[in-house]
Amino acid sequence: MLNRIGNQTLVFKNKPRVIGSYSVVGPKEGQGNFGKFFHKVLKDDLFGEKSYEAAESKMLLCAINGAIENANINKDNVDALFAGDLMNQIISSSFAARTLEVPYFGLFGACSTMAESLIMGACHVDGGFARYAACATGSHFSSAEKQFRYPLELGTQRPPTSQWTVTGMGCTILGLAEKGISIDYATIGKVVDWDVTDANNMGAAMAPAAMSTLKAHLEDTGKSPDDYDLILTGDLGKLGSEILIDLMEYHGYKLGTNYNDCGQMIYDNTQKTFMGGSGCGCGASILNSYVYTRLLKHELKNVLFIATGALMSTVSSQQGNSIPSIAHAVSISIGGKDV
Amino acid sequence: MLNRIGNQTLVFKNKPRVIGSYSVVGPKEGQGNFGKFFHKVLKDDLFGEKSYEAAESKMLLCAINGAIENANINKDNVDALFAGDLMNQIISSSFAARTLEVPYFGLFGACSTMAESLIMGACHVDGGFARYAACATGSHFSSAEKQFRYPLELGTQRPPTSQWTVTGMGCTILGLAEKGISIDYATIGKVVDWDVTDANNMGAAMAPAAMSTLKAHLEDTGKSPDDYDLILTGDLGKLGSEILIDLMEYHGYKLGTNYNDCGQMIYDNTQKTFMGGSGCGCGASILNSYVYTRLLKHELKNVLFIATGALMSTVSSQQGNSIPSIAHAVSISIGGKDV
Repeated sequence: MLNRIGNQTLVFKNKPRVIGSYSVVGPKEGQGNFGKFFHKVLKDDLFGEKSYEAAESKMLLCAINGAIENANINKDNVDALFAGDLMNQIISSSFAARTLEVPYFGLFGACSTMAESLIMGACHVDGGFARYAACATGSHFSSAEKQFRYPLELGTQRPPTSQWTVTGMGCTILGLAEKGISIDYATIGKVVDWDVTDANNMGAAMAPAAMSTLKAHLEDTGKSPDDYDLILTGDLGKLGSEILIDLMEYHGYKLGTNYNDCGQMIYDNTQKTFMGGSGCGCGASILNSYVYTRLLKHELKNVLFIATGALMSTVSSQQGNSIPSIAHAVSISIGGKDV
Repeated sequence: MLNRIGNQTLVFKNKPRVIGSYSVVGPKEGQGNFGKFFHKVLKDDLFGEKSYEAAESKMLLCAINGAIENANINKDNVDALFAGDLMNQIISSSFAARTLEVPYFGLFGACSTMAESLIMGACHVDGGFARYAACATGSHFSSAEKQFRYPLELGTQRPPTSQWTVTGMGCTILGLAEKGISIDYATIGKVVDWDVTDANNMGAAMAPAAMSTLKAHLEDTGKSPDDYDLILTGDLGKLGSEILIDLMEYHGYKLGTNYNDCGQMIYDNTQKTFMGGSGCGCGASILNSYVYTRLLKHELKNVLFIATGALMSTVSSQQGNSIPSIAHAVSISIGGKDV
């Protein structure tokens, strides 16, 4: 029995539910547009640690433990943790998993990781391979700048197309339940590369991948963009989301006011982040706070969450390669609509 | 219906089968003990490319395409590619996936990735989320040395506990079929860290993780080590596998002549690799050639493949952290034994 429709879309017949969630962000994100939605806002983004890398891992652990507590389960009930991050060899996730001591799968999908982990978790819960799955990711501005761009101490000027890596984490606990927010479909992305080489213009690099996956999702499910109350990309930023709107229009789909982008939304306009937020933590922190909260209040009924990732490394860029990108989509609803 | 037994073990009731496989290795590996088993041995480990990173990605693509051809399917039938590697941001996998244009999940499990990808693929095939899944990984000596240790040009002396990163790739295609090699169980690892800080002694760092997963597998399934014709760890090397034997003995399990380690086996004693091979490609290339070949000839009936990964990065090591490790186990058989 194949749980798929079309070319790239999975159908979750047992409707894995969001049993718990948690978000933790840095001070700048707390001062942004979603400050009141996040579960925890840090006063200091070092979080009591000596390095930003250690702080990032501690924040991720905090998000996972927070979601387990929010789900009102014991960590021994978590049959699988699916987690990844932006650090080389995803050390933030692996060091968090070391403390948690639960069965662990490390993922790398760059900023698409929140959707990737949700898809993995939904497959494991839906297929009976896990009672509860923890799906987690996040990013930290200071560790990402150091690894991908310049040390903060240099005070390097940022180009106008740049985005600001979100210091934030999110975790969702999935399990089977009678009611609540459910994961209905997922569309797995293919790698798309339109020859963008500017690592300071990630929105432009990732927009074609978002288009590819959104188009595949609509074709596979027979839905139109209007069937969703909210179509939310992870972190295309202002420029990237404008490009996505244009690309979808070219393919005959009109994205209206029900479309938005976490990168575009997360910071206040006064916060000088140019094109907005980016990083795994951007979509992860907003999904696990604002989106689920509005779904639980029935202010939203159907959400298509599309997390986008730029899959380059500093080495691939230094060797002159363009930026391969990917987007995974997860269809999330409340109200027990039949699939 | 829960497809699990014990605390960490999955049961694949629909018995996903190995439909195809392929291995490609560098010249040194071709001269080692398994030269005649590998599908392709390169004459030059640059594989016609200008960088070792590009060569690594091309080799991985070659392995995936080879396995698809060996499975006698079209790449459009591959519903999901699960792949990862050792490079920062797993560029080898993502660039290979860019050319392939199939739905793609990036993984990071360090040298445990062959088992991680097999588990993911088996879950997707068993759960009806994929008709065919491609599970692939690999490593390249020269790119790994450059990233994790020293540039080759320095000619740095290697310590006696060091292992040699295998230049090799492997890919398995899983699908449902009436007969053939089947994936029966998988035991998902937890992160284990016994405070080893020496990145030139990976065997010692990873042996406790192998012990943890092997012990969990035996407890969960009620099997004894003797139930397997071959228990094969991924790349503990000579020292690491001796430590594993000791640790298992401490816990009351005797590993006999049916236990071996890919890292220990892959090179000839004259090849000056000290403790033997390591890297994702070590277990991947041997599993996808020698092990499947012997299973298909019924020279082996039941194999437990345990791939081990050291989850540190250069940054985590430079900051004084120890090396968290993980091992995933996959139980593979031929002969259609009932689960």
